[in-house]
Amino acid sequence: MPSQEQLTSSRRKSRGHIRQRKGQQSWIKQLEWKQPVYSDAPIEPLSEDELQTIHEAAMRIMEEIGIDFLNSEAREILKHGGCDVSTDSPTVRMDRAFVMELIEKAPSAVTLYPRNPQRSLKFGESYGAFGMVSSPPNVSDLDNGRRTGNREDYRNLLKLAQIFNCIHFTAGYPVEPVDIHPSIRHLDAMLDKLVLTDKAVHAYSLGTERIEDVMSMVRIAAGVNEEEFVQQPRMFTNINSSSPLKHDWPMLDGAMRMSRNNQLVVVTPFTLSGAMAPVTLAGALAQQTAECLAALALLQLVRPGAPVAYGSFTSNVDMRTGAPAFGTPEYVRATQISGQLARYYGLPWRASNANAANYPDPQATWESAASLWACSSAQANMVFHAAGWMEGGLCASFEKVVIDCEMLQQMIYYHRPINVTDDDLAIEAIKDVGSTGHFLGSEHTQSRYQTAFYEPFLSDWSNFENWTEQGAKTTIQRANQLYKQALRHYEPPNMEKGIKEELHEFVKRRKLEGGAPTDF
Amino acid sequence: MPSQEQLTSSRRKSRGHIRQRKGQQSWIKQLEWKQPVYSDAPIEPLSEDELQTIHEAAMRIMEEIGIDFLNSEAREILKHGGCDVSTDSPTVRMDRAFVMELIEKAPSAVTLYPRNPQRSLKFGESYGAFGMVSSPPNVSDLDNGRRTGNREDYRNLLKLAQIFNCIHFTAGYPVEPVDIHPSIRHLDAMLDKLVLTDKAVHAYSLGTERIEDVMSMVRIAAGVNEEEFVQQPRMFTNINSSSPLKHDWPMLDGAMRMSRNNQLVVVTPFTLSGAMAPVTLAGALAQQTAECLAALALLQLVRPGAPVAYGSFTSNVDMRTGAPAFGTPEYVRATQISGQLARYYGLPWRASNANAANYPDPQATWESAASLWACSSAQANMVFHAAGWMEGGLCASFEKVVIDCEMLQQMIYYHRPINVTDDDLAIEAIKDVGSTGHFLGSEHTQSRYQTAFYEPFLSDWSNFENWTEQGAKTTIQRANQLYKQALRHYEPPNMEKGIKEELHEFVKRRKLEGGAPTDF
Repeated sequence: MPSQEQLTSSRRKSRGHIRQRKGQQSWIKQLEWKQPVYSDAPIEPLSEDELQTIHEAAMRIMEEIGIDFLNSEAREILKHGGCDVSTDSPTVRMDRAFVMELIEKAPSAVTLYPRNPQRSLKFGESYGAFGMVSSPPNVSDLDNGRRTGNREDYRNLLKLAQIFNCIHFTAGYPVEPVDIHPSIRHLDAMLDKLVLTDKAVHAYSLGTERIEDVMSMVRIAAGVNEEEFVQQPRMFTNINSSSPLKHDWPMLDGAMRMSRNNQLVVVTPFTLSGAMAPVTLAGALAQQTAECLAALALLQLVRPGAPVAYGSFTSNVDMRTGAPAFGTPEYVRATQISGQLARYYGLPWRASNANAANYPDPQATWESAASLWACSSAQANMVFHAAGWMEGGLCASFEKVVIDCEMLQQMIYYHRPINVTDDDLAIEAIKDVGSTGHFLGSEHTQSRYQTAFYEPFLSDWSNFENWTEQGAKTTIQRANQLYKQALRHYEPPNMEKGIKEELHEFVKRRKLEGGAPTDF
Repeated sequence: MPSQEQLTSSRRKSRGHIRQRKGQQSWIKQLEWKQPVYSDAPIEPLSEDELQTIHEAAMRIMEEIGIDFLNSEAREILKHGGCDVSTDSPTVRMDRAFVMELIEKAPSAVTLYPRNPQRSLKFGESYGAFGMVSSPPNVSDLDNGRRTGNREDYRNLLKLAQIFNCIHFTAGYPVEPVDIHPSIRHLDAMLDKLVLTDKAVHAYSLGTERIEDVMSMVRIAAGVNEEEFVQQPRMFTNINSSSPLKHDWPMLDGAMRMSRNNQLVVVTPFTLSGAMAPVTLAGALAQQTAECLAALALLQLVRPGAPVAYGSFTSNVDMRTGAPAFGTPEYVRATQISGQLARYYGLPWRASNANAANYPDPQATWESAASLWACSSAQANMVFHAAGWMEGGLCASFEKVVIDCEMLQQMIYYHRPINVTDDDLAIEAIKDVGSTGHFLGSEHTQSRYQTAFYEPFLSDWSNFENWTEQGAKTTIQRANQLYKQALRHYEPPNMEKGIKEELHEFVKRRKLEGGAPTDF
């Protein structure tokens, strides 16, 4: 077992750099593993006064209207903490001094240590981290179309999450492996995650047994005992409020168990403007903030200083049909303002790369590009669904994973520092080339060309004639080829034999015990 | 003929609002005609010191290396102005005091008055304006594939430029009408432009006769005499330097003629990093700036205070093949820094929506989305090729026009002000709906839902089942249907009978005279 110091030192040595095994990735040129840092000043759509106004509204919602906590233990804790807890309803009202004092206790940045310490991630400040698509019930690719989620596709998506360096963590299941019985799904699914990837993982808050099982498995994978486990955040959960104004039992139960164990909890209200939240952006964001802070206050009561994050998901619905929309101008603004709010409260911030398209085509791309720009311009610390999400979350697309990874890489590259040294200004080279030469042959170019520019793995920049001759392959077709090529080149990350055996033993034992109840 | 005052008053009344003729646009819901204003603070990648460093390098290029002016009249003017003009080469060196004094004379914002004064555009400050694709030799759509440019497609693209309110001007020909003989092409092409659209137009600087003919036609369309013509900027040209460090004869000739007539000249160096400019971003931008400012200084000598704009096009080439790349991280940064430089010199700024894809698919979309975010985040005053550009400028795509217009609309909507009034905060509505209701039915939603959110014309947000039932149409297919629908609904803008006759007369006469020479 490496000590904390060893881990830190090992992390430092490999700071943002995991050496590729020889030959493993010669089939693709991708940026090296490194957590991105945003470089521009964040876009802040609201003035300080306007931001304060949203804050005030959120406080009034918590004070005057209250949030329903459908969990008696949570209500008990809040009552004990001094809240106005209704006896004949689940509603809890909390005043602003109480809430803000507790929010103050939450750390503004959290470092997560997955089983491979070289994959550690810092959530907060100007750090970004991108997660694989999570939780869709369906999956699709060009070859076999759209189908119900299953373990094979689930495992293949995990392999892609491991292969692409621009994916930093997995959140929920990249697709629901519906062919595994719900009572034992969390066991097999987490076994796959921990074996097939060495990046940070997430546990669903879906009942006591599941969250406890998954915490145990993450602990085993890290090779630590229970005491050591709680010394560091090693995993995370995400809970959604049942907007409007409601937190459900299993979510609260899971979140409190995670907080007690010093693990990261993201609270993300499901505030679709016009449906579960006001039709106005300001109203939806006030409600999002109230629902989020109320749960975060509870978690800070459970364990002061517990790592938590402000999650945003506010978007709008199509008012003609009620269908959710993503990547819209409203979504971009809601996301950017959420970033402002998270910074206002000094909390790490989670957002998403979302779209509502049915096919990985231009609509999917412009909606995702807008979502990603929102995350990039406002400095989202955790970007959920960063690759592969489709249909407002109802489908994971293999081709979209590759398309998104290309966009993610470009976004990472964009934030690199720009050099303006004398050498970069190239006055001598300009003089040498003069008005009749060409820069391609100049020494200044020749000594730099190999690393001068970003190299995409999915773009085709050949001219029309060559492109046609090579089969006129569209981006979707190239993405299809590339994801299958990636799977052929997948190699599992290293895992100690003893640890793997212990994980399998644990899964076997828990299956024999019946897994988790399915009547939640 | 309306007086200047009447025009101004008419413009004011209709400020950013042209009423749709009844029924004309019931087939599409689009944003009304209105010049967009960017709302965020511009992203400025360089510090003031770094920007100053690029400026210094540009000054040194002009002072120490010099720019070739392949036009004896231009060299004469520059010599007379006090420059160091070589006698045995076309190279002109100018010192920084000379250049900066002249650049000071250029207006920081220019208002252009096309034949319909309601279509006036301000270039400068935080105003944006989007132009139709210009100058590709080829055109494509799903039905007939890729073909050489021709007058029918040229006219159809002009009709789309007129129909879509997010298109504010046409620049060069949306596609080259190759089936018109080059000697008279400018006459027929400009006739089509002036008759089929009432938005701001451009003249190619391709020889004396062409630029003079087109200025005459724009004058006739405006219904003014020669004296009145020069009182206002009514049109524009764009000249590209022949990078590195060279301005060609016809470009300089056209630009000087336009400046003498108080018409807008955009100077856009063709500085592809790694080919016609240094492989380093800073070097390419220094060269871009030197090439641009040298020409602008000439034009300010020709007519002090003449309206000019700083044009940027710097991108990189694919170092493996030499193919130009657009919408890359380098392109985005080069564009944003160009915006910084234009503001540093107090000049209106032109940029582009560019991509290098061969098909209007995800690659085309992410490259265009990145280009547009660059323009949006850095506040480009004129966005050339805003809709329809493909293949690094070698093809105009009808479907891409529609896809880009959808993205442009979203960009315009994004920059609208955000409201944070008590009414927007919706505390009462949140109270009324409580934890068990739904906002769709609330009065707060019902009274706002019709205008609450941006409504796209190209996105399909139906669920997968409905989408499949309706034929599983991809974005490209929907764009194909929509552009044909648009052409069916096209109605020509109003033009006085007398003016139209005078234009036809002019074209007829100039054709009889033989048009323009074709040996330039």
